[in-house]
Amino acid sequence: IQSKLPNVGTTIFTTMSQLAAQTGAINLSQGFPDFDGPQALREAVGRHVMAGHNQYAPMTGLPALREQVAQKIARSYGRRVDMDAEVTVTPGATEAIFCAVQALVRPGDEVIVFDPCYDSYEPSVELAGGRCVHVPLALPDFAIDWQRLSDAIGPRTRLIILNSPHNPSGALISRAELDQLAALIREREIYLISDEVYEHLVFDGVAHASVLAHEELYARAFVVSSFGKTYHVTGWKTGYVVAPPALSAELRKVHQFVTFCGITPLQWALADYMSAHPEHVDELPAFYQAKRDLFCDLLKGSRFTFTRSPGTYFQLADYSAIRDDLSDVEMSLWLTREHGVATIPVSVFYQTPPKDLRLVRFCFAKREETLRQAAERLCRV
Amino acid sequence: IQSKLPNVGTTIFTTMSQLAAQTGAINLSQGFPDFDGPQALREAVGRHVMAGHNQYAPMTGLPALREQVAQKIARSYGRRVDMDAEVTVTPGATEAIFCAVQALVRPGDEVIVFDPCYDSYEPSVELAGGRCVHVPLALPDFAIDWQRLSDAIGPRTRLIILNSPHNPSGALISRAELDQLAALIREREIYLISDEVYEHLVFDGVAHASVLAHEELYARAFVVSSFGKTYHVTGWKTGYVVAPPALSAELRKVHQFVTFCGITPLQWALADYMSAHPEHVDELPAFYQAKRDLFCDLLKGSRFTFTRSPGTYFQLADYSAIRDDLSDVEMSLWLTREHGVATIPVSVFYQTPPKDLRLVRFCFAKREETLRQAAERLCRV
Ligand SMILES: CSCCC(=O)C(=O)O
Ligand SMILES: CSCCC(=O)C(=O)O
Repeated sequence: IQSKLPNVGTTIFTTMSQLAAQTGAINLSQGFPDFDGPQALREAVGRHVMAGHNQYAPMTGLPALREQVAQKIARSYGRRVDMDAEVTVTPGATEAIFCAVQALVRPGDEVIVFDPCYDSYEPSVELAGGRCVHVPLALPDFAIDWQRLSDAIGPRTRLIILNSPHNPSGALISRAELDQLAALIREREIYLISDEVYEHLVFDGVAHASVLAHEELYARAFVVSSFGKTYHVTGWKTGYVVAPPALSAELRKVHQFVTFCGITPLQWALADYMSAHPEHVDELPAFYQAKRDLFCDLLKGSRFTFTRSPGTYFQLADYSAIRDDLSDVEMSLWLTREHGVATIPVSVFYQTPPKDLRLVRFCFAKREETLRQAAERLCRV
Repeated sequence: IQSKLPNVGTTIFTTMSQLAAQTGAINLSQGFPDFDGPQALREAVGRHVMAGHNQYAPMTGLPALREQVAQKIARSYGRRVDMDAEVTVTPGATEAIFCAVQALVRPGDEVIVFDPCYDSYEPSVELAGGRCVHVPLALPDFAIDWQRLSDAIGPRTRLIILNSPHNPSGALISRAELDQLAALIREREIYLISDEVYEHLVFDGVAHASVLAHEELYARAFVVSSFGKTYHVTGWKTGYVVAPPALSAELRKVHQFVTFCGITPLQWALADYMSAHPEHVDELPAFYQAKRDLFCDLLKGSRFTFTRSPGTYFQLADYSAIRDDLSDVEMSLWLTREHGVATIPVSVFYQTPPKDLRLVRFCFAKREETLRQAAERLCRV
C-alpha cells in the first residue's frame, strides 16, 4: 500500500507521552491536565448513563448543550447565535477542524496556516486535495507578519486557519489584528477557520478577541472550541463549531458521514454542568494564570529564558543558555531521559523551522506539586 | 459557498427520527435500541469517570480494550491479531470506515459498493476524490450478483466495501462467497473494507462468516465493528477496526488527524465489561432472534409480506399488498403520520432504486412492549 500521507509519522504528542510513560518522566509534553474535571460534571455522567441516555445523539448535537453554548457565547462575546442553525457539537475540536476543511477545500485550493501550528491542519488540507501555504509568525512574539501574509494570498487562496490563543506559543490575536485581517480579505472569497480551543485561557486581564465578536469575519468563519480544554476532560472528545447557517450546513454534511454525532451521555453532563455553573469559564483565567505564574516563578531559578505565556496552558522556554548544541528535538529527548521532564520541541509545529530555534514547550495544566517537582528538576539542568 | 457534497441532504435517519419525535410515532426507523446497555457496563462508566479516567486515550485505543478485542476475535473467529499493530479503537464505526476510505482512495479511484448500502460510504469516497461504482445486490435475497460484480471491476478499482450482516436487508455473506470474492480479486491490487458492525447479530444457528476468519481476504482488509451495536449503547460512539499492520498504520495516520482518539472513560468501561462478560456476545443471537421472531410472528397478522431477517436488527417488509400506489418514501411518511410507526424506505440506500421497490425497513431492537404496540398498529394498516 502506497501512503497517502507519506510525510506523516506518529504525532509528537503520542511519541512524547509514550516516552514519558516509559521513562517515568514528569509529562509536561502533550497538552492535558493531570487533575480532574469538576466533580459535579463527572457525577452527572454517571447519572445520565444510568438514566438511559446512551443512544445516538442528534447529528448536530444535544439541543440542551447547543443552548448552553449559545448562552455562553452571548455572555462572553455579546453575539446571539442560532443554536439550531449555527452550533454543531462534534467529537472533539480536531474533528470540527477536519470537517470544516473538508467542507471548504477542493483539489488545487491553497490554505494559509501560520507556523508554528497545530499538526492536524496540514494533513486535513492534504486529504482534501489542497495545499498549505505556510506563513511564519514573527519571532519573538509569534505575531502575524502582515507583509508575509499579504504576499501569501493569491487567487487560489480559499481558507486561512487562525489560532488564538496560539498553540504552542500562547500568543494572542488582538481585535485590531482581526480588523486588519478583515480589510485584507474583504474583496476575496476566502474563508476562515478560527481555532479558539483555548478561548477561556487568556491571562493578565486581557479579553480574548474572538472571531465570534467580529461581525465581518464571522460571516465567513468556522469558530471551533473544545469542552475538553475548558472543563479539564480532554478524553471526553467533545467540542463544537459555530458558523453562519450556510457554512454550518456544509460542515454538517461532512460531519454526518465522518462520525455522525457526538457522545450522548457526555453531552448531557456538559449541558447540566454549564447551566448550573456559568461562572466556570469566568474563573478559568485566574485558575490557569496561577499555574503559569507558579511555574514561571519557579523556573526563574533555572537557566531557561522565557516571557510569560499570554494564553493557553503552554509555556515556551529558550534553552540556548543550557545546551545550544542540541536541536530542540534532541533537547526534548535529553530533558526527558536525563532530567525526567518530558516536553514538546517547537520545531515540529513548523514546515521549515528557523534554524536557530532553541525552544521547548511545557504544559502547565498540572497540579501544584507536579509543577514544583518539574521545576525543581528543570532548575538542576 | 459552493457545496462539495451537492447531492447530500440530511440523512434519512435524522429525518425519520425527527419526524417520529414530532408526530409521537413509535420509532422503528433509525437503528438503535430503546432499551439500555448492561447495568454493569453503565456502572463502570461512572466508576471510571470518578476515578479520573478523563484525559486523552492513546491514539490507537486503550490497551486494555484492544486486548479484549483481540481476545474476542480469537474466541469468535480463531484468529490471533496483534493488539498493538492491528487493532485501532475509533469514535464509532462510521469514523473507522471514513478513515479507511481516506487512507486508500485517491482521486480517480473507483470503489465498488453493493446497493442497497449504508449512506456514509459514497460521501466518504467522494470526499477522497474517488467514485463509487454501484453494484446492485440480486433481489429478493440481496445476494451478490457475481456477473455484475465481475463486470464492475476494472483497472481503476481500488476498493470494495462489503457489509455482512447487511444493512438494510439482514442478508449474510457465506464463507463460500468470501472464497469466490478472493478468487475474483486475487490477481489485482484491490482492498476491502468489511463493515461487520452487526457481526454478533446472526440468527437461526448460522455462524457469521467474518473476513477475520478468511486468511487471504484479511491480508487486504479493514474489518470494522461497533461496540455501540454489540453492547446496546449506540450513543457512546465507540467502534474499532482490525487490519494487517501496514494497513492499520495508514489508517492511523488519517485517524490521528480526524479525531485523534476515542473516548477514554467509555473505553475503560467496555474493557472491564468485556473481560467480566465474555458470554455477552454469545448470548446476543438468541436475544435478538427472540425479538425478530416476536415481531415477525405478530406481523403475520398484517398485510405486509416478508421473509425473516437472517441478521442485523432490521426486518424488511413488502407493502405492495397494502398501498402499491405509494413509493417507499411516501409509504414511510404515511405509516409514520397516519399509523404511528416510523420506518426507513429502502430506496434511500440505492443510487438507482429498482422502480417497483415496495420495501420498508423496521428496526426490531426494541422492548417487547414496543414491538407489540408497533405490530398492533401495523396489523391495522
Ligand atoms: C490531541 S493530542 C495534542 C494535545 C494538544 O493539543 C497539544 O499538546 O498541543
Ligand atoms: C448513524 S445513524 C444510522 C443508524 C443505522 O445504522 C441505521 O439506522 O441504519
